[in-house]
Amino acid sequence: MTQQHETSAPETPQAPPPIEPGLEPVFDAHRGGKLAIGARHPIRDAADLSLVYTPGVAEVSRRIASHPSEARAYLGAPRTVAVITDGTAVLGLGDIGPTAALPVMEGKSCLFTEFAGLASFPVALDTTDVDAFVETVANLAPSFGAINLEDISAPRCFEIEDRLRERLDIPVMHDDQHGTAIVVTAAMRNARRLTGRTDGSLKVVVAGAGAAGIATAKMLAAHGVAEIVLLDSRGVIGPHRTDLTPVKRELLGWTNRTGIAGGMAEALRGADVFVGLSGGTVPEELIATMAPDPIIFALSNPTPEIHPGIAGRYASVVATGRSDFPNQINNVLAFPGVFLGALDAGATDITEPMKLAAVDALSDVIVDELRPDLIIPSPFDARVVPAVSEAVRLAWAGA
Amino acid sequence: MTQQHETSAPETPQAPPPIEPGLEPVFDAHRGGKLAIGARHPIRDAADLSLVYTPGVAEVSRRIASHPSEARAYLGAPRTVAVITDGTAVLGLGDIGPTAALPVMEGKSCLFTEFAGLASFPVALDTTDVDAFVETVANLAPSFGAINLEDISAPRCFEIEDRLRERLDIPVMHDDQHGTAIVVTAAMRNARRLTGRTDGSLKVVVAGAGAAGIATAKMLAAHGVAEIVLLDSRGVIGPHRTDLTPVKRELLGWTNRTGIAGGMAEALRGADVFVGLSGGTVPEELIATMAPDPIIFALSNPTPEIHPGIAGRYASVVATGRSDFPNQINNVLAFPGVFLGALDAGATDITEPMKLAAVDALSDVIVDELRPDLIIPSPFDARVVPAVSEAVRLAWAGA
Repeated sequence: MTQQHETSAPETPQAPPPIEPGLEPVFDAHRGGKLAIGARHPIRDAADLSLVYTPGVAEVSRRIASHPSEARAYLGAPRTVAVITDGTAVLGLGDIGPTAALPVMEGKSCLFTEFAGLASFPVALDTTDVDAFVETVANLAPSFGAINLEDISAPRCFEIEDRLRERLDIPVMHDDQHGTAIVVTAAMRNARRLTGRTDGSLKVVVAGAGAAGIATAKMLAAHGVAEIVLLDSRGVIGPHRTDLTPVKRELLGWTNRTGIAGGMAEALRGADVFVGLSGGTVPEELIATMAPDPIIFALSNPTPEIHPGIAGRYASVVATGRSDFPNQINNVLAFPGVFLGALDAGATDITEPMKLAAVDALSDVIVDELRPDLIIPSPFDARVVPAVSEAVRLAWAGA
Repeated sequence: MTQQHETSAPETPQAPPPIEPGLEPVFDAHRGGKLAIGARHPIRDAADLSLVYTPGVAEVSRRIASHPSEARAYLGAPRTVAVITDGTAVLGLGDIGPTAALPVMEGKSCLFTEFAGLASFPVALDTTDVDAFVETVANLAPSFGAINLEDISAPRCFEIEDRLRERLDIPVMHDDQHGTAIVVTAAMRNARRLTGRTDGSLKVVVAGAGAAGIATAKMLAAHGVAEIVLLDSRGVIGPHRTDLTPVKRELLGWTNRTGIAGGMAEALRGADVFVGLSGGTVPEELIATMAPDPIIFALSNPTPEIHPGIAGRYASVVATGRSDFPNQINNVLAFPGVFLGALDAGATDITEPMKLAAVDALSDVIVDELRPDLIIPSPFDARVVPAVSEAVRLAWAGA
């Protein structure tokens, strides 16, 4: 399975245009890269050199060669998370290639170091072939303790993650799928608690059937939501559709049980919950057809599917992906704790029970503080990473 | 071309033996890994997050996508050197595999950060197949500004370096070959200056026809040494040998012009210079047969081919690979400045003129201080990296 990167604009001999006014602080924060890599011990003289490098280092290599479990004690790799992309589905920008994707990967590595205290290194691969991606990452694996896959286009991302989880004995997780799913499901759990609903009674509409939409639907189902309808750009996914990819055909077995056909209007009528992961828009008149006091997660960035002010006229709870409205659904609430817990546990995989444990731990952080504008903690709530990582660690240990 | 890693010792359920007395400071220096990776800008609140990650980062990715030359300004990758191995020829330990090789790669990354001020990341590949190595590194290339190949067994290392240099538009250098060659040739230049010899008149014996031996012989020849004889474990390499690999057969065109056959005794008789890169030993009685006042570089670590005290009874100049004797031939004198100069120049390759410029710059640092026990600067001489990097940068610019 191969796809070509879009050709980047041919470089002109002129200098690039000046940075747009107002964006200087952004570009300043990225100048020279966002990660600092240095030696933990200074090398000032021959004695330092003989400890950190030859001849001392030979003793450490020799010990790891004869006692592989000692690698955990004397290497950085086991506590280093690779953030790996091929640049095929970067934020809302699409297939911009590996180099243009690197600012995002560097940023994500910074989130690992700042929120989880783990080392992290950004890797952008110059291939869009699934086999080559899998082989390359498998060959790299000794250099890392875990692998965060990022911004890889669907449906390639599903096969890549499946094959790497199968092949490697270190944790591998595609965050666009599972990070999103964990945070949405945690927020939904609290919205449900707040509004007195049960999972089994919810009718949920998920707009978007890419990596995030499908993974979120799966996790909601695993959490007990019985009635889920997904839409892609051509409308409701149901048995009437003859144009479905294999990945979307698999959804027919457990979504849209009432056989809805049509588009957003047909899907939203009477629904309790809207989860927007599509980048599209939903008009107010359709929101008005939902069940009373619905839950609306309009998560597209930077423009939510419906403005939270308008959604709030109908909904009991509104969440977005933005930091300037209440209830920000942000993956940084999940992945630092999930990877930290997996590495603390010495886990060889990130399993469904570990992800569900993360959902419960994340939502429970604020269980005594729930309000319509507080169904999910702030990313800067210092209780989040310890709670999530501990729950994930225990879920692996108990597995 | 494939080779298997030696199987590591099966892990026993018992704990590994205690660290040998005296080695605790070595293991302490490696505990938890030797590199620190962190965020250059703290992420304390939503405003920081919006600069370093979404939504701000999208602007940086968009700019690089439409103006690729801007990657240099806003990414860490262009100033990050990968230190890449497959663990097949690690120090004197041989084929110990990727994980046990990582302490050495981490140490080398520390040398890049400490001596050159460049970022560096250690990569150990879980493959010994040449094609897979090349494909993996080519796929990784957008993540790095340059590639330092390390501790890869011969003759595989030659093909790997050739193919990666051909394929990639960033600098690629196998340091075991060229770093060693640069420092040996620089030391030889000063030893020659000190003893009033000319390159053209030297008869040089190189013990060891692996990566370092062959590259050193080539660089000495490029520097004007007319008469070079190499030995491998089976003796002198010459037209009489029927067991030579293709790489060693290529040596016949330009080494051993007088057709010497036999072993070390035949090679050393009347030679001006001995360069030991073999891990073997040379008895005093053979040293006694060399030309008067020879130059002896006994570079094997930790045990030089002949003890420098004994060598000094005959030689005008003695060098070793050890920090506890004068004239330490250490690759750290070359690779930090070579890579820094190449990156400063925006070079797409590390060419022969760049390496020869490094030889001249490195030897010239101490041209006014030459003594028999000072033919090469200390690795901690602060003049070395600026001199080498500037010479390498100019050599690329002038190419």
